[in-house]
Amino acid sequence: MGNYGIDIWSDDNFIIEDGLAKINFNCKPSLISIVKDIRKQDFKGPLLLRFPHITKKQINTLYNTFNASIKEYDYKGTFNAVFPLKVNQLPNFIHPLITEGKKFNYGLEAGSKAELVIAMTYNNVGSPITVNGFKDKEMIHLGFIAKSMGHNITIIIEGLNELEIIIEVLNETKMECPNIGLRVRLHSGGSGLWAKSGGINSKFGLTSTEILEAYELMEDNNLVKHLTMIHFHIGSAMNSIKPLKKALREAGHIYAELKNLGATNLDSINIGGGLAVEYNAYERTRFYSLTEFANDVIFTLKDIARQKGVDEPNIFTESGRFISAASTVLIAPVLELFSAEYDFDHLKLKPINPPLIQELNDLHRDMSKRTAYEYMHDSIDHMESLLTLFDLGYIDLQDRSNAEILTHQVIKKAISLLEIDDYEELKKLDENIQEKYLLNFSLFQSLPDYWGIDQEFPIMPITHLDKKPTRSASLWDITCDSDGELPFDLKKPLYLHDVNLNKEDYFIGFFNVGAYQDTLGMKHNLFSHPTEVNIVFKNGEVVLEKILESQKIIDILEDIDYDTNDIRARLRKNLNDHNYKDMEKYLNENSYLKTIWSYHE
Amino acid sequence: MGNYGIDIWSDDNFIIEDGLAKINFNCKPSLISIVKDIRKQDFKGPLLLRFPHITKKQINTLYNTFNASIKEYDYKGTFNAVFPLKVNQLPNFIHPLITEGKKFNYGLEAGSKAELVIAMTYNNVGSPITVNGFKDKEMIHLGFIAKSMGHNITIIIEGLNELEIIIEVLNETKMECPNIGLRVRLHSGGSGLWAKSGGINSKFGLTSTEILEAYELMEDNNLVKHLTMIHFHIGSAMNSIKPLKKALREAGHIYAELKNLGATNLDSINIGGGLAVEYNAYERTRFYSLTEFANDVIFTLKDIARQKGVDEPNIFTESGRFISAASTVLIAPVLELFSAEYDFDHLKLKPINPPLIQELNDLHRDMSKRTAYEYMHDSIDHMESLLTLFDLGYIDLQDRSNAEILTHQVIKKAISLLEIDDYEELKKLDENIQEKYLLNFSLFQSLPDYWGIDQEFPIMPITHLDKKPTRSASLWDITCDSDGELPFDLKKPLYLHDVNLNKEDYFIGFFNVGAYQDTLGMKHNLFSHPTEVNIVFKNGEVVLEKILESQKIIDILEDIDYDTNDIRARLRKNLNDHNYKDMEKYLNENSYLKTIWSYHE
Repeated sequence: MGNYGIDIWSDDNFIIEDGLAKINFNCKPSLISIVKDIRKQDFKGPLLLRFPHITKKQINTLYNTFNASIKEYDYKGTFNAVFPLKVNQLPNFIHPLITEGKKFNYGLEAGSKAELVIAMTYNNVGSPITVNGFKDKEMIHLGFIAKSMGHNITIIIEGLNELEIIIEVLNETKMECPNIGLRVRLHSGGSGLWAKSGGINSKFGLTSTEILEAYELMEDNNLVKHLTMIHFHIGSAMNSIKPLKKALREAGHIYAELKNLGATNLDSINIGGGLAVEYNAYERTRFYSLTEFANDVIFTLKDIARQKGVDEPNIFTESGRFISAASTVLIAPVLELFSAEYDFDHLKLKPINPPLIQELNDLHRDMSKRTAYEYMHDSIDHMESLLTLFDLGYIDLQDRSNAEILTHQVIKKAISLLEIDDYEELKKLDENIQEKYLLNFSLFQSLPDYWGIDQEFPIMPITHLDKKPTRSASLWDITCDSDGELPFDLKKPLYLHDVNLNKEDYFIGFFNVGAYQDTLGMKHNLFSHPTEVNIVFKNGEVVLEKILESQKIIDILEDIDYDTNDIRARLRKNLNDHNYKDMEKYLNENSYLKTIWSYHE
Repeated sequence: MGNYGIDIWSDDNFIIEDGLAKINFNCKPSLISIVKDIRKQDFKGPLLLRFPHITKKQINTLYNTFNASIKEYDYKGTFNAVFPLKVNQLPNFIHPLITEGKKFNYGLEAGSKAELVIAMTYNNVGSPITVNGFKDKEMIHLGFIAKSMGHNITIIIEGLNELEIIIEVLNETKMECPNIGLRVRLHSGGSGLWAKSGGINSKFGLTSTEILEAYELMEDNNLVKHLTMIHFHIGSAMNSIKPLKKALREAGHIYAELKNLGATNLDSINIGGGLAVEYNAYERTRFYSLTEFANDVIFTLKDIARQKGVDEPNIFTESGRFISAASTVLIAPVLELFSAEYDFDHLKLKPINPPLIQELNDLHRDMSKRTAYEYMHDSIDHMESLLTLFDLGYIDLQDRSNAEILTHQVIKKAISLLEIDDYEELKKLDENIQEKYLLNFSLFQSLPDYWGIDQEFPIMPITHLDKKPTRSASLWDITCDSDGELPFDLKKPLYLHDVNLNKEDYFIGFFNVGAYQDTLGMKHNLFSHPTEVNIVFKNGEVVLEKILESQKIIDILEDIDYDTNDIRARLRKNLNDHNYKDMEKYLNENSYLKTIWSYHE
């Protein structure tokens, strides 16, 4: 993979040209030029670059594809979509999304009171708001208040009690009732009757019996006229379209059944999220196109409507990953390379060495192409034995160091003698002589899904792309945690360049990080959110908008409820003027690393 | 497990008495009495209870055990410890720890600049500070500033460049140099030469060759007098003591070798963290006592010192989990039970039913003890078929509901006929008829390690403990995420009580959550840190100290960089006075659920 799988994951958003990763839009600037511009303003540490034009492209693609499918099948319902705020609530992402979505009436989905406040405040009036998740009376009352503002809001009930709360609020406030949706618990979400995720035992939704109970309750309280939507969700990031088709049939029939029971204003099916994004840099894992997806949805619903003799429903989707993932790129500066190679310079053989050290030296001297494999393996055995001898006190530290150096030199010579120059061969050996790249970022803060659910993200240096990467790379973050590492993986090898950081910069890009990573970010070691910047284009030029610097150390401490006046007073008391001045400077810098010896990050 | 494994995990910190979980200290109050006191002050949602007396007990145990071992073996070195801030940086935990630790000279460990600021500000002067992790020049300069304040600080270098930065800072500032430690990369951390964690390829530490290089560099710059410590860490939460013994031998020899090279002030070995905590409620997973641990450390180091003819080193530990885990309990209110049972009330058979429905009805009617198993399995098969018929449009919603009810009634009758009344038998069947308990908390915010690394935590209701729990339970949090669930697990079954929440409260306690969970908490759906309270005892009575309420919604939005003035202005403009007043009230409440229908949380 000379191009880091860019043809697989980038969806033409990024291209490689003249050895640089470039944005395939407008004036096609390189990522490195943008990074340099930002760093010139003294923003160091990791950077999150947001590209609103990519969000816009995704919104356009979603609507255009579904609308084309609707036209092709002469479908009578409309296509509608909302962005689920839980996927990314940050204002620098949300504000452009709302602006770009206006012409389509693109709306927002809220899953908590705080998210509902965002939707009520900023959603374009008229664009749909849907409300999912477990709700208390306060949250449902917020829904009524949103309705009073003119919002097109649908409260999707997850259990019968939420319907009872709606009735209670209605009776107490006499306010106008929002639309009501029913989240249905599908049989076909999982692989069988009792399947966990999405199935009968899933966390959300009403069973058939509860749907009928809910309908009765609505009839008794004159609420059927507000029932407008059936909602289901079969799980995040579907790799195949098959389970969706099955779920659509089931939900479609529930829709039709309720219509036939008398739910005259019921006109929409909300198919939830689940549109996958390609995160893989080695082979495709998403096995459908958006056109296939849209066609399947339209065709299935049309078929059921015909079969049951009801109107074709409007379609709602709540895809968040598809809209947001590609819009954000994390750029982490490489601070240091920890080489696992050892120079002969440091070899300090004694006049008389332990026999195994002498043998290691002989293995290195006598190795030929024919004996390379054998000698290499012998050297590794010897090294193991020598380490044991050290633990038992039989050899000293210099012997141990000599053993390290000789073993690594044996391996290096073997690789050279065997003329291993293609990746496949290198892969077999290089696991042992990887380079460790120390990156100025926190994996826990910026790629939490990698830690939590082994989510992979495309990784690519943003320069040097015209040079052959020769080092099998492990990436380390700067946290004090051995989990803060993306280790070299023989099955998905990452090769990076051998760079001299005293002479040149080297930045690693992590792509498709716009979904969930911002909001799930953890403050391990108190590393906070990276500096973020919106990249927009005006008159064919790049404009850096809404730069938000990573938190200052003193603000981080305030956030976790330290009394910062007390901190300052104590430090002031115990430091002389000169040192306190330096201290105050450090309190006002962000928490990432800055100056690394002669190399200044 | 009638007692939820309390004898396994609680270390006598909590006991069950009169059906209540009580704190085994001072006036032995029940957890429910404390929870009620807090909730009386209108703090709803999840609660984090911190018990400084447990932290104190752990510190005492750690020092007393090691000091007893030192006495027993007539060991010449001293025992010293620091608390690694990354495990819990929050002031309500840290302030009492520093107070309680004073008499032992218990210190702090910092792994980032923000953590170092906490240590510099609040550590008892004279108690050790150790600094780990990757450091920039600013962080090392902070170490010099700490030294100037009189702190007993040791900068532990992770790579040669950090030593070069020390030299640079020393030359530039002419300030007094802090102590220097060397983090050594051990062979014996993992299971072999190339083992990942702690081993040769681990994220941290110097190889033998680098140690010798570092020593040379220190000699050349007249710094050897500042070298006081060797540091290693073989990984978190060791379940067995064996790898530690191996690592101790290796590190001990490195210490002795450096002494013999001329490092006259080198007098300490820092053995890192790794003391495990018992999180399991079903069987013990930690296979050593603290006394064994201490004895092994003392004995091994004594042996090596004798063998190499050097002074017995002082011992440092950085155990964080052992000190902090047990001190914090998360209490989550149960909001609702979602029963998977279906009443006959809702069965509405038609005059003529689909044949399989009729058969389900017959299965229920004709079932005997002899046929119970067979009929139960037949009913599940029928249910599967009926669901397929629904998807294809052959049966209607009422039929589907009838099928659900009949199948569940068949299973219920089978359980009753089979007279299954012991847990083992129930386990085999109950997976399908579990109860879902909706809890007012976020798993992502409060138990991130459950999500991320499948860390288990002891779970126990804090009342009803004199009653037999009869429901196999799945626990759901209130996030919109299907991962926000602790599903029923046949291998580690959790049984809870069948409670009527309209008549009684029911709270679930999660124990041993004091390590890492606070700082790794994620803002999924914008749920923030729970309300926290320190529980202290004065004159035989409980005192609630330092109540910190969970963030208000408006503050959460400010935290993620929304302009809250703009939010208020927009809402004000679009709402009438009455609704804006309600809105303002909601903005000033925390984000967790509050009023659930007639049941008020």
